[in-house]
Amino acid sequence: MKTENPPLLIPDLQTIADLAAQLRVDSIRSTTSAGSGDPLPSMSAADLLAILISRHFRYDWDRATRTPDNDHLIFSKPGASPLLYAMYKAVGVISDNELVQDYRRFGSRLQAHPMPILPWVDFATGSPGQGLPEAVGIALAGKHLENLAYRVWVLCGESELTEGSVWEAMETASRYQLSNLITIVDASQASQRDSKGLDFDLETYAKRFEAFGAHVIRVNGHDLEEVDAALARACGGFESKPIVILAQTIKGRGSSLLELDDSQGNPLPPGTSRQAIRELGGERHLMVRGPKPTQRAASVIQDTELDDDAPALTYTSDAQISTQSAYQDALLDLAGRRANVVLLDAEVAHPTFDHKFAATFSKRSFELGFAEQQLVATATGLSVRNFIPFASTSAAFLTRAYDVIRMAGISGASIRLVGSHAGVEVGADGPSQMALEDIAMMRSINDATVLYPSDAVSTQALVEQMANRTGVSYLRTTLGGYPVLYEQGTAFPIGGSKVPLSSSNDHVTLVGAGVTLHECLAASKLLAEMGIRAMVIDAYSIRPFDGSTIRKAVDSTYGRIVVAEDHHPEGGLGEAVLTALTEGTKSKVRIEHLAVRDIPSSGTTRQLLSATGIDREAISQAAQRLVDGH
Amino acid sequence: MKTENPPLLIPDLQTIADLAAQLRVDSIRSTTSAGSGDPLPSMSAADLLAILISRHFRYDWDRATRTPDNDHLIFSKPGASPLLYAMYKAVGVISDNELVQDYRRFGSRLQAHPMPILPWVDFATGSPGQGLPEAVGIALAGKHLENLAYRVWVLCGESELTEGSVWEAMETASRYQLSNLITIVDASQASQRDSKGLDFDLETYAKRFEAFGAHVIRVNGHDLEEVDAALARACGGFESKPIVILAQTIKGRGSSLLELDDSQGNPLPPGTSRQAIRELGGERHLMVRGPKPTQRAASVIQDTELDDDAPALTYTSDAQISTQSAYQDALLDLAGRRANVVLLDAEVAHPTFDHKFAATFSKRSFELGFAEQQLVATATGLSVRNFIPFASTSAAFLTRAYDVIRMAGISGASIRLVGSHAGVEVGADGPSQMALEDIAMMRSINDATVLYPSDAVSTQALVEQMANRTGVSYLRTTLGGYPVLYEQGTAFPIGGSKVPLSSSNDHVTLVGAGVTLHECLAASKLLAEMGIRAMVIDAYSIRPFDGSTIRKAVDSTYGRIVVAEDHHPEGGLGEAVLTALTEGTKSKVRIEHLAVRDIPSSGTTRQLLSATGIDREAISQAAQRLVDGH
Repeated sequence: MKTENPPLLIPDLQTIADLAAQLRVDSIRSTTSAGSGDPLPSMSAADLLAILISRHFRYDWDRATRTPDNDHLIFSKPGASPLLYAMYKAVGVISDNELVQDYRRFGSRLQAHPMPILPWVDFATGSPGQGLPEAVGIALAGKHLENLAYRVWVLCGESELTEGSVWEAMETASRYQLSNLITIVDASQASQRDSKGLDFDLETYAKRFEAFGAHVIRVNGHDLEEVDAALARACGGFESKPIVILAQTIKGRGSSLLELDDSQGNPLPPGTSRQAIRELGGERHLMVRGPKPTQRAASVIQDTELDDDAPALTYTSDAQISTQSAYQDALLDLAGRRANVVLLDAEVAHPTFDHKFAATFSKRSFELGFAEQQLVATATGLSVRNFIPFASTSAAFLTRAYDVIRMAGISGASIRLVGSHAGVEVGADGPSQMALEDIAMMRSINDATVLYPSDAVSTQALVEQMANRTGVSYLRTTLGGYPVLYEQGTAFPIGGSKVPLSSSNDHVTLVGAGVTLHECLAASKLLAEMGIRAMVIDAYSIRPFDGSTIRKAVDSTYGRIVVAEDHHPEGGLGEAVLTALTEGTKSKVRIEHLAVRDIPSSGTTRQLLSATGIDREAISQAAQRLVDGH
Repeated sequence: MKTENPPLLIPDLQTIADLAAQLRVDSIRSTTSAGSGDPLPSMSAADLLAILISRHFRYDWDRATRTPDNDHLIFSKPGASPLLYAMYKAVGVISDNELVQDYRRFGSRLQAHPMPILPWVDFATGSPGQGLPEAVGIALAGKHLENLAYRVWVLCGESELTEGSVWEAMETASRYQLSNLITIVDASQASQRDSKGLDFDLETYAKRFEAFGAHVIRVNGHDLEEVDAALARACGGFESKPIVILAQTIKGRGSSLLELDDSQGNPLPPGTSRQAIRELGGERHLMVRGPKPTQRAASVIQDTELDDDAPALTYTSDAQISTQSAYQDALLDLAGRRANVVLLDAEVAHPTFDHKFAATFSKRSFELGFAEQQLVATATGLSVRNFIPFASTSAAFLTRAYDVIRMAGISGASIRLVGSHAGVEVGADGPSQMALEDIAMMRSINDATVLYPSDAVSTQALVEQMANRTGVSYLRTTLGGYPVLYEQGTAFPIGGSKVPLSSSNDHVTLVGAGVTLHECLAASKLLAEMGIRAMVIDAYSIRPFDGSTIRKAVDSTYGRIVVAEDHHPEGGLGEAVLTALTEGTKSKVRIEHLAVRDIPSSGTTRQLLSATGIDREAISQAAQRLVDGH
């Protein structure tokens, strides 16, 4: 359903020059008013933005969130939010008053770094070198999943080009031929110090981007005609390459006072501010809007096309299935029922499964290679377009992406991460391959969901729920095959737990998840031989955590509780249990917390569970100590 | 004190070819015997290694750890440990029996991935793309701190070149002109799948490395003469550039069975193994050693040149000093007394201080730019050469380096990390700049030390101890100025705590660290007005944690305890307290845990501490709730 745009009044270059001056003036006004922030990183890029928004950025400002063909604009450059907000004033979506009075204020939506509480911001930026990787995810969606013509524009600062994440992004962008991704580098040599060679020349930047597969256009970032021509050429595309516009700029551009200033990181004092604004021609209140997109999509892609049929999987109770393979089965099944489910994978993890998924859903499978930051950033980008990304790799290597996960948490992005190779259960591959801090890492992310199932049935139920879950959710899986514990169809609500073993008069509570749940169940048999009855809790939902069941169990077992986890003792299941128990139990609690306290070795799973003291014997002995203690 | 090397018997190419065959055979034997691991990634690089160790790698194998001029060899390529261990057999430092019987076995020193329990291994590898960044740290020490002629050789696999950390490393290597760093890329197209374009051609690799400032030499990795010539040229140096040897190889090279094999990740079954070994000419037990280094250094650099004088700093009790600036003062002072203290810094953090440090200790200050993985990896590399690196940046951005920190923990590397911009205390800069998960992240690192001082005096004492601390240690600092609480010279042992306020009959215990300690002290005054006496604990050492003082305090205050932390509730101070309390208190504990539970906004520090519910009023109210509860 194509609709024609109304004829456009393209602003002339003089108007755009005035607009650029306004953007500079407003960047000075907002920072001086806030008493923090720095206008200089905004002033260098003002000409670039003025041309972009008045002539090339296709956006229906009146229907921001309801126009699927709108271009995207990502402010990756740290510290340039004054320019972004000045632009919002110029297109008329915020008032001058809000711009000047609210910037960086408590409770305001004009935060120091852009936040998606603003309807025109896709995700939080502010961590250097992260806007581009996430923009890659959006461009990937447009080009390979949605087949829409929107472009993804990214403003980068030059100082963030030292981040490795930038190169993971460019390599992915060129591999996937993201010609809809246009990165504008504001090269003002404005990195916050004149340190040893950190400021490269444009030639070096150009070589690097070209070597990573981009088409590079170099411009004088203050020559409006040149910038206009470059952006027009960029929109034309180059051999399916991502495009990088390297703009040589001057950091305090427009103010003779500031162009030579080497102080930075702070707003201008009021006197300097007034003088600079005068030199820039004073306050202006131009309103300029560029073209609207040619509408092609009927509506924003909806989150779900859920078929209410239950998943087709069934597991028999005598099967030995790893939760990693159950996750794979569940994802294949889910993707068959929900058209927005996308698999993202980093090198190595599970080639057989990836091939199988790619064979069935070839368009919805992306391989990122050994590039964990890009793996997670792609998920964040896809979530902006309402896809349901599952990003999976070895859990230990997700630590590489911790900052990207942190920013996804701040953004409130709905992404699903799946980490295999959890804990010493990994066995022979040794400590570098064993995730032993992933639960701590994920629990401390804003609003995160942390799941750790023990069998195939619960894994399937949890994967199903992750698809509907908002925010960052994490599934920890196990490589080894373990028995199916639950009947098909059992509900495993996020925030719940299971009690697979209990009697009316148990002596001790055993809590496990993943491999340690199986060890708790085995320990209960050893204990039964000694006349000790154990209640066993499956803590499959580590965050949110089912404190109520734990508290009841502890009260009914004389305050005795053993927690066993295949993870370091800090920040994991054990401390989640302790936090839950602070809400009050009737009994005085006595807890034994079994966890991985030393560097593991290579070995067999059984050797390592035993040496680490988290196996059935260790659990049984801990329970005995508690029972003997009373 | 130069000593002449004895004349060398340089092995001829036929001997080296035999050696390469032996390395391949032994890689097959060890993996087949272990029943896990894969010989193929080793076989492709066998010719490269055979030439390297017999002709170019300068190493005194009889005095491995006592020869400061020894070259370094870093196996960055994941999965190539069979080749490394086969090489150790070939130079005669491990037996054939150990090689075949111990590889990947429980408790063995021949772990799946190289570990520094072996005297010839500098740090743990196994996480893709990390060996090179850490090698950069060693090369930096050799070139800029020690002025020694040792070379740092790195074997990389091509699949790890997608990691951004590789490019952070190359950029640092070229900026610091590390011509003593020679990276050999084994390009066998052996990435574990034939996915969409992951396997680049050598041309692309060459362009990328050249764009990042390396001198690139391309070779056929199976032509011994060519490889020999390339390594010789590499040793000659090229315009102070780091050198990259791109070796085209074949992954199962040497066995017609394996060259075409596309299975991978697994050892050969015994039948195939026997056949491949036969084709390679059977088992061999050659011993070949290359040249020893020309000795120039008198001894390995010692850890310390400690001058017993106490630090020269003094703080008066009415000063308002940030712990960040107290850290800077302490480091400047420390560096004046200990010649091995080195400052590493990432862009942005604290330019004034960095300039001051660089002005005083110009050779011991390195700027890594926005490249946090490289920041920490450089520290790991420097620690190999017995330097005392302090790597400081904004704490939130240290999350970017979490995998590098994890590997440092596994290596047992002694590195010191300092993170500023902790928590909502940061104020106007907003959530992307606020570290709210750093304590969880650092606590869960193997054997880590986590410190969080509240005033200048304690900061100084802790920095002093960090210099002597083994393993990964982390100091969390605050930006705002706060009163000096302690007298100069007060001891702050790691693992201890302080009780700045107590009486003989307190009603409640308040626990804080950093900014919340000041809030606890202020809360105690509010409480005193209501007749409630509070004991206040300064938990400056979060790991190891002083559980004993907490338990005594809780027992003496009727089980009532308030913990306030400027961090997410998961994995931080509060859970450290809970873990400490599991060891048993006489009283039933009632705890109020105040922490940052939502996404903060921009704002002033006071607005944010209040909105988050961790300020003096919130602490006072929590204490009242506990007191009222009984």
